Amino acid sequence: MPHYYQTVVGDNPTRIQQVVTVATDRAGSDEKLLLFTGGLGPTPDDLTIETLANLFGAPLVEHPDLLTDIEAKFTARGRTMPPSNRKQALLPEGALVLPNPQGTAPGIIWSPRPNLTLMTFPGVPREMQAMWRETAVPYLHNQGWVTTTIVSRMLRFWGISESALAEQVAPYLSQGNPTVAPYASKGEAKLRISAMADSTAAALAQIEPVEAGIRALMKDNCYGVDDDTLASVVGNLLLQRQQTVAVAESCTGGGLGQLLTDIAGSSAYFYGGVIAYDNSVKVNLLKVDASALEAQGAVSAIVAEQMATGVKALLHTDWALSITGIAGPGGGSPDKPVGLVYIGLAAPSGEVVSYRHEFSGYRGRDWVRQLSALSALDALRRNLL
Amino acid sequence: MPHYYQTVVGDNPTRIQQVVTVATDRAGSDEKLLLFTGGLGPTPDDLTIETLANLFGAPLVEHPDLLTDIEAKFTARGRTMPPSNRKQALLPEGALVLPNPQGTAPGIIWSPRPNLTLMTFPGVPREMQAMWRETAVPYLHNQGWVTTTIVSRMLRFWGISESALAEQVAPYLSQGNPTVAPYASKGEAKLRISAMADSTAAALAQIEPVEAGIRALMKDNCYGVDDDTLASVVGNLLLQRQQTVAVAESCTGGGLGQLLTDIAGSSAYFYGGVIAYDNSVKVNLLKVDASALEAQGAVSAIVAEQMATGVKALLHTDWALSITGIAGPGGGSPDKPVGLVYIGLAAPSGEVVSYRHEFSGYRGRDWVRQLSALSALDALRRNLL
Repeated sequence: MPHYYQTVVGDNPTRIQQVVTVATDRAGSDEKLLLFTGGLGPTPDDLTIETLANLFGAPLVEHPDLLTDIEAKFTARGRTMPPSNRKQALLPEGALVLPNPQGTAPGIIWSPRPNLTLMTFPGVPREMQAMWRETAVPYLHNQGWVTTTIVSRMLRFWGISESALAEQVAPYLSQGNPTVAPYASKGEAKLRISAMADSTAAALAQIEPVEAGIRALMKDNCYGVDDDTLASVVGNLLLQRQQTVAVAESCTGGGLGQLLTDIAGSSAYFYGGVIAYDNSVKVNLLKVDASALEAQGAVSAIVAEQMATGVKALLHTDWALSITGIAGPGGGSPDKPVGLVYIGLAAPSGEVVSYRHEFSGYRGRDWVRQLSALSALDALRRNLL
Repeated sequence: MPHYYQTVVGDNPTRIQQVVTVATDRAGSDEKLLLFTGGLGPTPDDLTIETLANLFGAPLVEHPDLLTDIEAKFTARGRTMPPSNRKQALLPEGALVLPNPQGTAPGIIWSPRPNLTLMTFPGVPREMQAMWRETAVPYLHNQGWVTTTIVSRMLRFWGISESALAEQVAPYLSQGNPTVAPYASKGEAKLRISAMADSTAAALAQIEPVEAGIRALMKDNCYGVDDDTLASVVGNLLLQRQQTVAVAESCTGGGLGQLLTDIAGSSAYFYGGVIAYDNSVKVNLLKVDASALEAQGAVSAIVAEQMATGVKALLHTDWALSITGIAGPGGGSPDKPVGLVYIGLAAPSGEVVSYRHEFSGYRGRDWVRQLSALSALDALRRNLL
């Protein structure tokens, strides 16, 4: 379904009626669908339903089954239904119930006049999404509102900028169905492939050769697809190899460990690590050479490498990752600016390497820390391929 | 300024013109202000400016100074301006420039007819916010659009639910100016006090007694205000005492250390810690008693306490915090459900205590982990008061 207009107004009956009138009077396609979110609650400022009923001259009628359902939901939580919730069982005459499995406010599906359908949803995102998925989408398919399917796949890249990626896949960006569009967020570059077809299977068949072509071009820079994260991809590679990893973190302060343990089941390959924020922890616990620390500074290749070696020995893992850098806003110098980060990687062979990064310090402390942790994961990923 | 309507449309000249016509024709206040975001870029689908110029019958004129500025911005990044960016220097005749200090797309301030003012902003949030703050707000004040000031202060609470908070401060919630409204997010309860007055000073004077009254009622449950976080408040308390802290994390995997090091300058009081995700790390590094671990399980008061004691001894800090729990989705049992978390706290005296929490496991792994880390900070905060 093409989506043309979207308007936000406050809990004000005049303004709600005005936008509905504008929407229903608009020239355009014969049939109109208006979706409403919010204003279905029990308080006096929740007035979407009565405003719509007024506008289209329909009386409100009480649905005893809905009232019973709302009361039961309160009982299940050990509470008594406040009288104000009674109004959530009042719907315009002729409207169908759009059930709310997760909350007390039902929605409506209502055609108050020919070629016009209204659907209301609560403002709570979780409830709204469940109602959309479980009832609205099947209804719209059955009623013939939806005749084609759009399927999208998001390809995820690390270690390449959005603009460099766009240049390398330029011919794909100008093609029609499927379309390919570049996105970027938090240091990651992405390509969304979207196909429109009569069925999901047909759309997927259109996506497949495009995805294969882009992957062949971009090789290891493409780390995953859709819900993959660098941490989940690294986790799967470690699981396949039955290997383990530990971390030693300075400027990220635990952020790398947190990313790894975002993944349920990560205890199979992540043992833990040392947050070596203070230099004393680097020396005493990770056995970083105090003279190297003195000579090269905490933010240096040698300290990153010794941190990785140290934590690998301490926790007895196959791999170890370390991070030391200047997250800012203070602590930078002309030689070592804010955003300078070294990542250490100790391999099962005993070999240890480091990677130097200069992230955009002006983007702030969070940016530097987040990119540091993600770049460390990417370093391990490439070594596991 | 009251804000009445907000509409979203795609990059389509007919639809943009339609919504502008609806907005300008609306009954209501004599003077209208329309704010636009997005569509100021160099590509063919960026057509806000030409669409507005068309609608109000004004020719586009090139501003040579803007063109110079745009070219200079490309030069500063070591690039040549693509020809397509030339159109960003074209503005409707009679429009004032709304400068964009952070990007190439300028906005406009334009009154194409009496009692109507249009302002355009790029869609990039960072650029839009800077332009709003630096030029639009002063302009609107000078032009008399804004005659009163609204000042808000957000009071932040931990260890009390939004509903319990709302009950305890009920009389404040029904008062007029300043208004007090409850909010909740990520386990935190909040109260926003908003005052409307002729000046910021007058609004602050209205807020002050309300804030004092609420603080007197809620005591230590109010941990801070506005941009305070539990980590920043804990950090300030440690700085005042010139004391240090270390962490030992199991289920949070580094999340507590990350919260502490979110704060610039945290190296003054945070030494680091041990991510003891695997039990071997708890035993070998933190010296958790293997028989206690066997008998009570990793998620137990005794293990939390020994983790805190262990990391305090290892890192030589004044305080230590530990977390061990079941983040889910797997790993729960009837005795120890998903969401069960123990927090350990070792004090400078050598005393160690633990706190038992049962967070809502059905809200998911991230929820349990985040509330665990924040609750640990709150435990330290209350012990530092």
